[in-house]
Amino acid sequence: MRLTPAGELTRRVAALQELLVQKGIGGALIMENTDMFYFAGTTQRGHLYIPAEGKPVLMVKKSFVRARGESALDDIIHLANVKDLPKVLSEYGYDNITTLGFELDVVPVALFQLYQKLFKTVQIVDISGLIRTVRMVKSAYELELLRDAARLNYTLYSRVKDYLKEGITELELAGQLEAVYRLAGHEGVVRMRGFNQDVSYGHILSGTNGAVPSSMESPTGGPGVSITFPQGAGYKKIARNEPVMIDYVAVRDGYLADMTRIFCIGGLPDKLVQAYEAACRIQEAVQQMAVPGVMCEDVYRQASNIAAASGYGEYFMGYPEPVPFLGHGVGIELNEWPVLAPGFKIPLEKGMVIAIEPKFIFPEGAVGIENTYVVGENGLETLTLFDEKIIYLE
Amino acid sequence: MRLTPAGELTRRVAALQELLVQKGIGGALIMENTDMFYFAGTTQRGHLYIPAEGKPVLMVKKSFVRARGESALDDIIHLANVKDLPKVLSEYGYDNITTLGFELDVVPVALFQLYQKLFKTVQIVDISGLIRTVRMVKSAYELELLRDAARLNYTLYSRVKDYLKEGITELELAGQLEAVYRLAGHEGVVRMRGFNQDVSYGHILSGTNGAVPSSMESPTGGPGVSITFPQGAGYKKIARNEPVMIDYVAVRDGYLADMTRIFCIGGLPDKLVQAYEAACRIQEAVQQMAVPGVMCEDVYRQASNIAAASGYGEYFMGYPEPVPFLGHGVGIELNEWPVLAPGFKIPLEKGMVIAIEPKFIFPEGAVGIENTYVVGENGLETLTLFDEKIIYLE
Repeated sequence: MRLTPAGELTRRVAALQELLVQKGIGGALIMENTDMFYFAGTTQRGHLYIPAEGKPVLMVKKSFVRARGESALDDIIHLANVKDLPKVLSEYGYDNITTLGFELDVVPVALFQLYQKLFKTVQIVDISGLIRTVRMVKSAYELELLRDAARLNYTLYSRVKDYLKEGITELELAGQLEAVYRLAGHEGVVRMRGFNQDVSYGHILSGTNGAVPSSMESPTGGPGVSITFPQGAGYKKIARNEPVMIDYVAVRDGYLADMTRIFCIGGLPDKLVQAYEAACRIQEAVQQMAVPGVMCEDVYRQASNIAAASGYGEYFMGYPEPVPFLGHGVGIELNEWPVLAPGFKIPLEKGMVIAIEPKFIFPEGAVGIENTYVVGENGLETLTLFDEKIIYLE
Repeated sequence: MRLTPAGELTRRVAALQELLVQKGIGGALIMENTDMFYFAGTTQRGHLYIPAEGKPVLMVKKSFVRARGESALDDIIHLANVKDLPKVLSEYGYDNITTLGFELDVVPVALFQLYQKLFKTVQIVDISGLIRTVRMVKSAYELELLRDAARLNYTLYSRVKDYLKEGITELELAGQLEAVYRLAGHEGVVRMRGFNQDVSYGHILSGTNGAVPSSMESPTGGPGVSITFPQGAGYKKIARNEPVMIDYVAVRDGYLADMTRIFCIGGLPDKLVQAYEAACRIQEAVQQMAVPGVMCEDVYRQASNIAAASGYGEYFMGYPEPVPFLGHGVGIELNEWPVLAPGFKIPLEKGMVIAIEPKFIFPEGAVGIENTYVVGENGLETLTLFDEKIIYLE
């Protein structure tokens, strides 16, 4: 189990502090699991106070012993009752807070009302955008973990040929591949940020199931096996001569690698092959143009243009309900920033990690490719290395 | 894939409406996935308006086609832009709303602020307690689904002997058993309500790992395989003569069955056997006393007394940080109402479904038993049928 080094936590805290100072916010009170992990190096339950200037204080409810063993921060205390929070902060010299940042994108209203009572004279502001901005650019240390996750996906996709047989169901294939993940150390959970954001390991969809839409902001949905979790693999049997899209998310030490490949027993109709080739052309074009400084929305536009020129524009990124993006940031959550989408007017930066997934969804099946990339000086470097052609099996 | 029958939705909606009328609330605007599933029979993205009197309106953003195929409600419309929500409600005659209920226990602040702008003159109140109250008592239809989930756990626990061998890791056992679940139709997700509530399939913990605490409100935690999801199976090898606690949650068509059994290769020290027997005595006593009308907290107290009398009270429900409960409601989420805990002053009702899990956590390992029960006229009926002794393997 890998612990986050002290220097890495210091870097992350300093990056948030810089934004807090810029915005005139006195401090940040962090509670959400992934943010706690990111800034404190532990996911135990409690609060992390990051002052705009000074040292952070980690106040743990449960498990204190475990948090102290995991976090490399200096100041870690046991705080059983949240009502004592202002007093504890005051003891650390953080007693004249006038503006306090909260993760308002995820903290529920009823919980928030408790904090409003605790901090009556304080102006509470949303710092979720600042947190997402800091987390958007990955350090060398994080890239090492992301490469590990990508290697786990290499292992997984290498094993598909051992399990994918005509006549087995998508669900059977999913069960086998998820066991491969688990045995190799996948923690069993893929995190997404926000209300109602659900995902399991990903989507395994064959033929017509590739076109079953869902509530997700994703080009594919899939039937799933129940109405309560209506996405991903279903009971459909995998047949010859149809695309089998495997879009699965590896996780190692909390870091994600998102990847899609198309497998096929037999062969595919020309239309699907041509659309797949268009997806690959989009990847190649994006890989070159996506250098630091280029606007995220311009990358999306370029991809859209290539999709339109292929003649299959109407099937690009979902059908009949396309989603308006080409890629999404990846780190410890599946829906990090940046998003390659219209309206996302921020420039690419070196160290951003983005899953880019040009896909074409036809009523008879979904085709496309997805890799997780890191933005470098000269364009994108692929983290999820694996054969990029359609993988035909007999 | 099982669709919720119209009559069942009518019953659920009517039960909430009765509470809305009692509380003088004009209507409920429901958005959260499990609540949507419960009241509308679909988990597609959108809003369900349930007026205190009159017919509900389901307004779907994505996927509309799928929601219409899944939900047995009469009024289902496509609503692309949330800003049109008040206008649509007005068209349905719901235009003089003064008090509106929201799921404030789960809706994040930033999202809520959008609705405050949409409903400027409306008083918004928290109805999460009302929803949890309605969902607490299960219908005959729901019991049928819960029995299916329990049967899935029968299958799983029957297979443990095929995989549990000396020297394999907890994680290897977890991967194999999770594949059994998936192949049998487990949807791959176990839902918990609330902020930062994480769970995967459950906990497989051997020997000393049974005592590794976590952030969860659960008697066991376990190391997990990463700091970001620090619970459940770890890399520890399973040895002879130690308890292997398997606490796994089956899901079928969205309904959960929670169950724990102790397996052991070889034999166990007397102390652990005695503590296990105390846990079984607690189950037997609770099963008889838990009739309709008995207060939830009284059941907890009785269990606590038996634990204390056994001489192992200090290890009851977690060590060194015990959790203050004996059982929790189970339905479409793992942490439903009621809770058998101090301060939970509501009487048991026929049809409540509760997972009861007396456990003793020693530094050398965790022992105990858990079944999911339904409250009947004469006490608890066990849903999760399986051998209730310690299961010794060679």
